[in-house]
Amino acid sequence: MKVAILGAGQLGRMLALAGYPLGIACELYDQTAETPGGQVAKITAGAFDDYRKLTALARRADVVTFDWENVPVESLRVILRSTPVYPQPAALEVAQDRLLEKTAFGQLGIPTVGFAAVNTRADLDAAALKLGLPGILKTRRFGYDGKGQVRIHRAADMGRAFAALAGQPLIYESFVNFSREVSLIGVRGSTGETAFYPLTENVHEQGILATSRAPCRAGSLQASAERYMRSIFKKYKYVGVLAIEFFVANGRLIANEMAPRVHNSGHWTIEGARTSQFENHLRAICGLPLGDTSATGHAGMVNLIGRLPKKKTVLAVRGLHLHDYGKTEARPGRKLGHLTLVTSSARSRDLALGRALKLR
Amino acid sequence: MKVAILGAGQLGRMLALAGYPLGIACELYDQTAETPGGQVAKITAGAFDDYRKLTALARRADVVTFDWENVPVESLRVILRSTPVYPQPAALEVAQDRLLEKTAFGQLGIPTVGFAAVNTRADLDAAALKLGLPGILKTRRFGYDGKGQVRIHRAADMGRAFAALAGQPLIYESFVNFSREVSLIGVRGSTGETAFYPLTENVHEQGILATSRAPCRAGSLQASAERYMRSIFKKYKYVGVLAIEFFVANGRLIANEMAPRVHNSGHWTIEGARTSQFENHLRAICGLPLGDTSATGHAGMVNLIGRLPKKKTVLAVRGLHLHDYGKTEARPGRKLGHLTLVTSSARSRDLALGRALKLR
Repeated sequence: MKVAILGAGQLGRMLALAGYPLGIACELYDQTAETPGGQVAKITAGAFDDYRKLTALARRADVVTFDWENVPVESLRVILRSTPVYPQPAALEVAQDRLLEKTAFGQLGIPTVGFAAVNTRADLDAAALKLGLPGILKTRRFGYDGKGQVRIHRAADMGRAFAALAGQPLIYESFVNFSREVSLIGVRGSTGETAFYPLTENVHEQGILATSRAPCRAGSLQASAERYMRSIFKKYKYVGVLAIEFFVANGRLIANEMAPRVHNSGHWTIEGARTSQFENHLRAICGLPLGDTSATGHAGMVNLIGRLPKKKTVLAVRGLHLHDYGKTEARPGRKLGHLTLVTSSARSRDLALGRALKLR
Repeated sequence: MKVAILGAGQLGRMLALAGYPLGIACELYDQTAETPGGQVAKITAGAFDDYRKLTALARRADVVTFDWENVPVESLRVILRSTPVYPQPAALEVAQDRLLEKTAFGQLGIPTVGFAAVNTRADLDAAALKLGLPGILKTRRFGYDGKGQVRIHRAADMGRAFAALAGQPLIYESFVNFSREVSLIGVRGSTGETAFYPLTENVHEQGILATSRAPCRAGSLQASAERYMRSIFKKYKYVGVLAIEFFVANGRLIANEMAPRVHNSGHWTIEGARTSQFENHLRAICGLPLGDTSATGHAGMVNLIGRLPKKKTVLAVRGLHLHDYGKTEARPGRKLGHLTLVTSSARSRDLALGRALKLR
């Protein structure tokens, strides 16, 4: 079985590594061969709109997927003429645009934040009037890790915020006073079979995921989150792994965004679940039965951002797992790797996570 | 960190896969590039006595190791001039020759079977007289998976047995009426740090490992096995993973053979232990701290020999993990992959293992 993956970052790398034991060979595609994924699997370098190269790649594969959310949907539609693409390009198209995404949440009855499209300064004034302050002005497309967004605390901030982002289609979102952030990672197979990991609690720092812990205190939130995800699965006849990030406010879930791919908040599943999100994504898109998503213990994950701690120091900590993405260039804000730990209780997990955080 | 691995079979493949998350890049070396290991990492094809190629390989690496027991020790000694080799060639030299191996066991006070060198038919008669019948006549070198050995039940078998193996240095071993077979996988780091996995119980079919389960009922055997392994570690200032296979007879361990490398009976550690034997071997030879060897549950392993079952059938079984070695040619007796399962009790493990066996 051959899978082509558009994008060869750490997600593509971990997908390729999950493929080998299953006898699934991944071929990656990215703008340059010098990528985390290109170190562990065959890679072709090319532009994401080079239809000739993409079609040749697709013809070598049984199925095509992506590790990068900004793959042009038009390229996927070209590929579809020769090879199946999962998750469905229609789901990616919606996830690429915050306005389409939140509109879809609304149509499916998934609670989300108040939002309004903003193209002009007048739109912003109207949106703030309707939805109130504080709020966040965001680009509709190409935002990630907190990039492309400006918080608006008071009316006086509006001019500066608009000027910072103007020239791109924008969205104004009301600010949610949340108590915590959680995400659901789920997967749907080509036969309609679904499986969900336990809810993960996430902490962001400067807009970038810092830590995850799973399973988290969830109560009835698990069932609600799964119900919401099922409605998205149904809408797109979705195949593959899907992530939804939620705020928890007043004990209820508010969907923030979805990612039609394996997700940073699911990295703990490599050691912390019976089947990793990477393996389950490959199983789903290859038409294989899904694997057990149950947790093997209490897992914690720490992102390594901007710099990697000394390997000797990290590996000297009993039970700590290192994932080095093989990036040759360290930059502030760049995800270079992550640490995982799995313990027998939530309390020991939280203690170990606290110690692991100090290693960064 | 760069590791060169001589031999690119399934062991080299799983070593290379374990290296990636640690940021350790493995380069493999084998007689042909079309190997299980060559599918997942850079590989150089060459003869095992091509000193020029081997030296060039070693110069690209920080450390050299091997996944194949019959690598010529002389080649390792040539490599040693430019790069460290772990485990030590002296340990491999002893493991390659059943006579040296059993002599070493005896010198270290490790109980082993009765044995005698056999070069002539007269030697065989004398050995059988001294050690009794039944017994097994084996080649001293190049035996694996039950190859290169003939059982001798009665005096009348001796002529045929000797004729079958004559022309090579042989060893006669007395037959052990064992109740079960177990193996110990342990690891020693370059600072002298050691760690041991729980004893594994193994069942062989036609001389080839069929199933392993771990942890197995061990009682005081665990401590004895660790004591024996420590004496080998000390003798060679050993660095890396070492396996010793034992018979259990009358409740006591009798060492059968040792393997100075990762071992088939340790494959369960990928899912069943906090740190796999593959990761620990790399940690050891790269001078990194060792990882936690404790079991995460009750693990079972089934070798897939001669043919691979249908992927869909295997992956439909909840909790079953597939490891496909990517061998393009299936042959009777050839190890093509393995299955692993991890459960919460020994009883549920044994039930699941029974079901998994039927999938072969």
